[in-house]
Order: sequence, then structure tokens, then C-alpha cells
Amino acid sequence: MKLEKLVGDRFKEKPADCVIDSHALMVRGGYMKYVANGIYSSYMPLRRITHKIEQIIREEMDAIDGQEVQFPVVMPASLWQESGRYESIGSELVRFTDRSKSPLVLGMTHEEAAVQLVREYGQTYSKYPFMIYQIQTKFRDEARPRAGLIRVREFTMKDAYSFHLNQEDLEEYYDRCYKAYERIYQRAGLPEVVAVASDSGMMGGSISHEFMLLTPIGEDSIAICSECDYRANMEAAESIIHNDRDVTSEELTLVHTPGIHTIEDICEFLHGSKEKSCKAVVYQKNEDDSYIVVFIRGDLDVNETKLTNYLGFDIHPAVITEESGLNAGYIGPHNLKGDFTILYDRSLEHGNNLSCGGNVTEYHYTGLDMERDIKDAEYHDFAKILDGGICPKCGKPTISISRGIEVGNIFQLGSKYTKSMNMTYCDQEGKSHYPIMGCYGIGVGRLAASVCEAHHDEYGPIWPMAIAPWQVHICALRADNTEVKEYADRLYQELQSAGIEVIYDDRNVSAGAMFSDADLLGIPLRVIVSPRNLKESCCEIVSRDKTISMKVPTGEVKEKLKELKNQMLNL
Amino acid sequence: MKLEKLVGDRFKEKPADCVIDSHALMVRGGYMKYVANGIYSSYMPLRRITHKIEQIIREEMDAIDGQEVQFPVVMPASLWQESGRYESIGSELVRFTDRSKSPLVLGMTHEEAAVQLVREYGQTYSKYPFMIYQIQTKFRDEARPRAGLIRVREFTMKDAYSFHLNQEDLEEYYDRCYKAYERIYQRAGLPEVVAVASDSGMMGGSISHEFMLLTPIGEDSIAICSECDYRANMEAAESIIHNDRDVTSEELTLVHTPGIHTIEDICEFLHGSKEKSCKAVVYQKNEDDSYIVVFIRGDLDVNETKLTNYLGFDIHPAVITEESGLNAGYIGPHNLKGDFTILYDRSLEHGNNLSCGGNVTEYHYTGLDMERDIKDAEYHDFAKILDGGICPKCGKPTISISRGIEVGNIFQLGSKYTKSMNMTYCDQEGKSHYPIMGCYGIGVGRLAASVCEAHHDEYGPIWPMAIAPWQVHICALRADNTEVKEYADRLYQELQSAGIEVIYDDRNVSAGAMFSDADLLGIPLRVIVSPRNLKESCCEIVSRDKTISMKVPTGEVKEKLKELKNQMLNL
Repeated sequence: MKLEKLVGDRFKEKPADCVIDSHALMVRGGYMKYVANGIYSSYMPLRRITHKIEQIIREEMDAIDGQEVQFPVVMPASLWQESGRYESIGSELVRFTDRSKSPLVLGMTHEEAAVQLVREYGQTYSKYPFMIYQIQTKFRDEARPRAGLIRVREFTMKDAYSFHLNQEDLEEYYDRCYKAYERIYQRAGLPEVVAVASDSGMMGGSISHEFMLLTPIGEDSIAICSECDYRANMEAAESIIHNDRDVTSEELTLVHTPGIHTIEDICEFLHGSKEKSCKAVVYQKNEDDSYIVVFIRGDLDVNETKLTNYLGFDIHPAVITEESGLNAGYIGPHNLKGDFTILYDRSLEHGNNLSCGGNVTEYHYTGLDMERDIKDAEYHDFAKILDGGICPKCGKPTISISRGIEVGNIFQLGSKYTKSMNMTYCDQEGKSHYPIMGCYGIGVGRLAASVCEAHHDEYGPIWPMAIAPWQVHICALRADNTEVKEYADRLYQELQSAGIEVIYDDRNVSAGAMFSDADLLGIPLRVIVSPRNLKESCCEIVSRDKTISMKVPTGEVKEKLKELKNQMLNL
Repeated sequence: MKLEKLVGDRFKEKPADCVIDSHALMVRGGYMKYVANGIYSSYMPLRRITHKIEQIIREEMDAIDGQEVQFPVVMPASLWQESGRYESIGSELVRFTDRSKSPLVLGMTHEEAAVQLVREYGQTYSKYPFMIYQIQTKFRDEARPRAGLIRVREFTMKDAYSFHLNQEDLEEYYDRCYKAYERIYQRAGLPEVVAVASDSGMMGGSISHEFMLLTPIGEDSIAICSECDYRANMEAAESIIHNDRDVTSEELTLVHTPGIHTIEDICEFLHGSKEKSCKAVVYQKNEDDSYIVVFIRGDLDVNETKLTNYLGFDIHPAVITEESGLNAGYIGPHNLKGDFTILYDRSLEHGNNLSCGGNVTEYHYTGLDMERDIKDAEYHDFAKILDGGICPKCGKPTISISRGIEVGNIFQLGSKYTKSMNMTYCDQEGKSHYPIMGCYGIGVGRLAASVCEAHHDEYGPIWPMAIAPWQVHICALRADNTEVKEYADRLYQELQSAGIEVIYDDRNVSAGAMFSDADLLGIPLRVIVSPRNLKESCCEIVSRDKTISMKVPTGEVKEKLKELKNQMLNL
């Protein structure tokens, strides 16, 4: 490919709407173009990157006996009604009707389509296990698309679905897929990715993992133990709190606290610590707006994912009205009267000498003793794990919170979909069972952007050889010089004949312009052909990551590049 | 791949909803599954076929300097409003809104997206020409999906868009693309495909070609000259009629014709021929239901595409009301009064002694002389070409009408989209112009189905080597026999190591069941390992198309298969 003919503009200025580096560089480098909120077109360099990522994924899925299939982007609503998700998923699922008014949806995931495809095939136990996957466009009407390809509405995804006779077999396959994912990130040049335990959310099922690129610009929070291998998404991380109960419990006392609303205010007013306070966090059920009051230690926050999972229905932060019976700013567990769902976080268990709301405007209690004053309380884990918190695995206070981008996930789904969609198999005794499913996703574009995010400098991406749009970039400095042009032209032909993917810049532009374009394209190996080099009968080979910089005799350039390319591909 | 593990059911019964062979065989063979009207999922064998077709297309597009990009499936309505197609295209364009009520469409073609992607890039003449293409899912809400993958609503398509400084450059590129298309069909195993001149319809532009597989089950009609190379879609084929004018013109006479409505009736009643009658065909404009009356020779039919192109607006067959001023069944060109658009087909030019409607109920004229009685008539070509008609190229009466499936098309678009979407470039003098576009499509799934339609027998598809899901099919007859199993297992490994794609059937089923499955999978080369063969120290190699059947010594099987495979790939 001649750079001169490459469609797409490259430029210096950071686009105003780009908040992360990978997004800015991929716009500046002519990789992608904005079409609508969360919707992009790709130019050739990005298409070549995503092709290579897709091929790596395909090979690894095939290696664990996956069978590539294809599901539709557009599906009939009836399929999603079978599973119940047509009703349970919110407006991220695009619903529309066709010319004959039949309701359709755009696929944002394909559990339903997978079950539909194999429901008849999988009627006998002897067919199991099997895994099918596709690499296909999906659409999820995200409320807040952001950060370029990191969170989009339309995206290409590899989604895989495995079917098993029992949980044991699923777990064995799940482990194979886990390892395949590790190989995928390794091969795609992102060995930094770590697996973390996660919450399964709307997917159903129990055990699941997310594969995370740890980076400050990530939108997920991950709890990581520095002493053991515990890693979990904050949404799924168990919060462990050891309350040191005071030896003597003070008396429960109503205190006048005018103008005091927040935990910070009350702690200051009473000269207490947040750890010695009991905070109320109020939600409402989406369905009927009924109130859910969660009591939690004053220094902690509620993890809404845990809360939703416990409740089994969707909630939103409450709007506390005058009619509600709740005294906003003064809600406490003692003498709270009304038709509310009242929940207690484990962080309050055994707590005493706590301050809390008095359920009367401008009054708080001090001296709350959970054991003495709230006898019937049941405690559950609703809290966000803290930085410096206790590791649920090794028990040491060595949890730190990092940010990460989710570049893949794997779920043990159980029989949620087979049951709801009535997929069964007969065992050897002729008895009918629901198969157990797993599902496994990787977003291709997000992975490309994540590689860029992890591997770039201020001048552009530094693509790993395995997914780089081209392998070698020839810069012919002063292509108006006959000798330069002839040598570079010949090298271009020779490298291509040797099966090397080459982009060739023979424009009559300054070295500065040429190199800044090359930096934006991020090709791992660069050959510089110039009058000065040729005078010494050599070329310069430099790597985009600056670890390689060498002068090579003109006659050995091709071989050297082949060798370096293979090294960088681990061949 | 072991056949035993291949997901998908194969069966004998022809599904009731399949009207063409390729559809029935691809359902019976476990290639595809119905999801909704015109929407299918693909199993692994079909996905492998479409992958190979995609790769052939990709290579040929790259060979003519195409740059692979990717456009979105979901696009903002605003993009289609720019070109005017948001309004002009009917309900085949799916329109819906997202969560914030922004109107979106599903891409059924991507001219708008292509212009949007390169509008800034193409501002200077020096960037031209260039071509971008994608292989991507599309959705077109067809009123009548039919024939399996031949006419679906969701489909994968390669669509390419070229941009040029002038018509001459477009034509040169158009020709290169025409030849690339011929290579694609050749390589995909469908050399039977012919290019025919076509109508550009809603795409805008002028010259266009369709690539057709001639087959009685096709839904297009194609006029083919047996004497020269003229080939055109009936929609685009010029109709040429030489009227032999009678020497004497009779008098125009009103005749009472009670109960006579049709051309057949009137010809019988008057003992005349259809060629000596003038028929009225009436349409209404979609927009305001105003009437368009087309007069045409009684033996011919109106070509609605030509008529629509002439009128420049959409029409539908008329409902003739009492208030319309038209006498249904008695409409003629003489004394026709009212506010109608009246058009004359060229087949009437110079005609005399014609019968026609009298514009009075139960009356016809005889003796109509177009030159004498309808002095101001202008004649245009609105007629469907006839089987046995005159070839517009060589002038001989050697046109025959065949049916065909359109497996690709290429269009010269002109500046329809660049103009409406305001894409311009500056020439060397700094003057601004609209670039000229071409567009080029191939439906991947339809091509796969067409290959099957052209190459199958009653037992299954006969896939060409280049797109077959696998290259070699090993049938281990009596896999319970240790010797058979050992040899077949080893052969399976050896062939795979030699880079051959193998499907291996080692199930304990009858030879009949094994062969009927193999026929349905249509793999070009089959090896039969059986106790009887092994007793003679050989295997049978047969080709799916039955042109090859040989016994090969066990030690030479691998080499022979490699040789045959390469032959069949033309390597």
C-alpha cells in the first residue's frame, strides 16, 4: 500500500471531543470517523487491525472446539419474549417494527439466538458438550457512549455459547475458555490483561470473570489484593468489616441537631468518627416506587449491584417526598415506622455507640447499639469494598482499588435460557433435563482501542506486530532523488514478494511530516531510505517502540526485516 | 472436524416451505436455520462457505486497489436526509428511533455512509481516484422474502464505492471492476454467470450491469440475443417494433361492442390480430393518484421500470373510478377527454387500421390511423421486449428471454450523491467540482445459494473446491473395525498436517446413512476407508461430482488427495 493513496486524513490537533489518548490518536491517525453518538466508521488501518484480532480470536476459539456460526443482527421479539428479556431489559435493547408491524429487536447479545439454533440438535445427551460462536455486529443503545471505541453503541463482538450436560462439564470447559482468553490477549499484544471475578448481572448464572486492562482511564473499579491472587470487580467484591465493639454501650439518646443533614455534619457536630455512625441510603423500586432503606456504616457506600441482586428487581435512588413518611437527612433504624423494605449492611453487625438519624426532623440518636436496639436485624453484604479493606480470600487488609477497561468476559449461565426457552435433552435413561450453558464475549473494537491505550506515546499508537495494520513502513526521504526512489521501490516490491505487509511512503514531503504520519500509523518496523543513508550503502531500521535502531547494509535489509518481523511475532 | 460433533441436523424430508432446490438442500444439510421471515442463522458449514467467498471477494477488491473499511449497520436518519433517500425510499428502509428519540435507519446500502467517510479526505483532486469497500451485514425490509438465501431481509454484502474526477476515469475503473467480478464468479465456482445491462433504478446514475446466473428459478427476466453479445435485464432492454403500415387506411368507425372488455375479446369479435390493436394501460401517480394512460400495441406489455424512469415518480396500477372520466375497458386515444397524462409507446408509431377503445361504454373504434387521427402523439419506449423480438444491438429478431438470479451488480452513479451531500474537490485551478461515483455490490449468501443452485444433484450440493466447507471428507465405514479406525484416524491427522481441511466421519452408522450425510455436505473429495478396501491395501477416492472414482494404495492416499485438491483449486 502506498501511503499517498491511503484514504483518511491524519492531523496534529487533538480533537475536542476526545477524552482519552487512544480515541484522540485513532481519530488523528485516520483510523475511524464519527457517524453518530457511539457509532463510527472504520478506515482501512483500523479494519486491518480488527481483521487480525478477529483471526486470533477465531483460531483460539477453534482450538477449544468452537464452531463458528452466524446469528442475525435483527431478531424477532418473540425470541426475546421466550427468555423474558424482551420485558426485563431496558432501553439499551432497541425495539422496532417491520413493514408488517411485527416487533423486532437489534441483537445486543445472542443467548436466545444460540438456544434457538441448537434446540433441536441438542435433544440427545450424546451431542454434548458443544460450543458455537460468531463474530458479528451488535447494537446496544447505551445511555452514555464515551471514549471512542471503548464504549460505543454499535460494535463487533465475538460471542460464544457452550452447552453442557452438567455443571462439572461446564466448569471444565469454562476453564479451557479462560485459558484461551489469556492466549488471545497475549497474542494480540495485551499480556497486561488480568481476569477478575465479576457479577453476572442480567446474564443470569453465578460464576463469571471479566478480563481487565488496568488503566486509570477505565470505567470499572477492581479490587486487587497485593498479598494473594484475589481480584474482583468492585461490583462483585465481598466487603468484610471487623467492628471493634466498645466495651460499654452508652444509652440511646435523642439529640437536637438543627441544620445537620449529612454524615460529615453529624460526625463533626458530635465529635464522632464516621465508623461510629449509621447512615441511611434510600432507593425506590422501579416498578412501583416503593421505598427501600439500607442502613450501612457511615464511612461506606452501598454497592447497588449487590443490592439489586439481593432484591431481585431494579431500583433507583429515591426521591423522598413529604408523604413518604421518611424524614430526609434524619432517617435511622430505631423507631422507623412505615411500609418500607429495611435492610442492614454487615458493616453494622455488633456495632454500638453509633450515631444515627432520629426519624424526627432535626434530631439524631447517639448511643445506638445494634444488638440491643435493633434486635431483629438481619445483616447482608451491600457495601462497596474499600481501598485498604480486607481481602476476602487471604484476610489481610491489603485490598487496593484500580481502574480497568473490560476487554472480555466469561459467564457460567446455568440453565436460565435453556429453561425459559424449553431446551431439553434426554439422558441415557430417557429422562429429560435442561442443558447448562456458558457464554463468552470479546469486543473486537474495544480490544483494538485498549491495545492502543496500553501501547502508545504522545505521537501515536505503538501497534504490536500481530495486529499492526502493516508490518513494515518504508519512509523514502527525498523520493525525488532517483537513487532513493529506485532503491525504495525495489525494496517495496521485494518485501511484498517475501510476504511482508508493507506501507510505503514515497511522497515529496518533509522528513518531519513523514515521520509524524508514520508515528500515527504506529507500524512496528520502519525503514528509512535517504540519500545520506544510501551514500553509506545502508538503510536505517528503527522500531516504533524505539527499542531497535540500527543501520543495515542495503543488501541485507530484506532479510533483517524478515528476521525482526518473525521475532516480533514470536515465530 | 469430526462429523459426529458438527452442530446441526441433517435429514431426508424436503421441508414444506422450500420452493427451490438450494434452499431445501441447505436446510436439509444443516447449513442454515429459519429465525424469522427472511432472517436466518448459519451453521458452521455455511459460515465456512461464506468466509471463503468473502476472502475471494476481498482479494479481488484489493487487487483493483480497493481499501477495506467498515460502515455502521445503524445510521442516523440525518445522513439519509442529506441524500434525499430518507424520504424517497419506501418501507424497505427500516426506520426507528433510539432511547433519546433520534431517528435512525438500518443500512440497506451505504452510498451515504461512503460519502460521509471521505467527504473531507476527497477535497483535493490529487487524492483521486480511490475505492473503498466493506463486507458487512445489511437489512432490507423486503415485502416478499423467498427462496431461502436468494431473497432475504438480512444479508451480508460486499459493497464498494469508487470516486473519480470525471466520467472517463469512472468508466475505466468500472471496466476493471467488471473484470474483477468475472474473476470472482470464476474463482467461486460459478463461471456460468453473465453480465447483463441493467436499469439503475433508485441508485441514480446511468450505465449499470447485473451479473446473472441463468436459471429457470431466477426472479429476473433477461433478454439475450443468440446472434450477438447483447444481454440486458428485461427492465432495461429496449423494445424495437417495425410496424408494417397497411397501404390503405380505413375510415375511423365507432362499433358497438357489447360485453367486450379485453384485447383478446375485441380481436376475436372483430376478427383482427392483437398487433392491429391499440391497448390502454392505466396507472396512478403514488403521490396524488392522478391518472397516466399508456397506449401500446395490443400484443405488448408495459415495462413499468421504463415508464417510471420516464415519468420520474412512482406509480401503481390504477383503480378506475366512475368519477375518473375513464371508461374502463373502452379507453382509446381518439376523443379521450380529461386531465390525464397520455403516453404512446413506440410500437404504435405509423400504425394504421387499428382497433381501440371508443371512450364510450360498449363502443370501440376500428380503422384508427395514428398518423391521421392522433397527430400530436410523441412516441417513447415503454414496452417489454418480446421473446423473438428484435435485438437492439444487431437488429436481428433473435432475442430470447431467460430467467436469472442476480448475484452482483455494478453501477455508474454519476454525481447524484456527491451533489446532494455536497462533497466537492478542488481542481488544479482551484475550481470546485462534484466527484463522480461508481458502486459495486455482491451478496455473499445469495452467491453461496446460487452456487448450490447451479451445482447440485438430488442428494445434495456439489461445492466447488474453492468454497467448499471442507476439502476432503473421510468416511470410515465400520469404524468399529480396529484396522479401519486406526488407518482413518492416522489419515485424518496426516491430511490436517498437510494443510488439508478435513471432515471425518467415524460414526458407527450404516454406509447408506454415512453417504447420504456426505452428499448433503457436498465436499468435493471423499475417501472411503473400509475393511474390504483395506484388505486390498487401498482406499477409494471419489469426487462429489462423480467425475473421479479410483482405488489408491493406502500409502499414496495423502499425496493423491493433495494433488487432486490442488488440481481442483487450479493451483
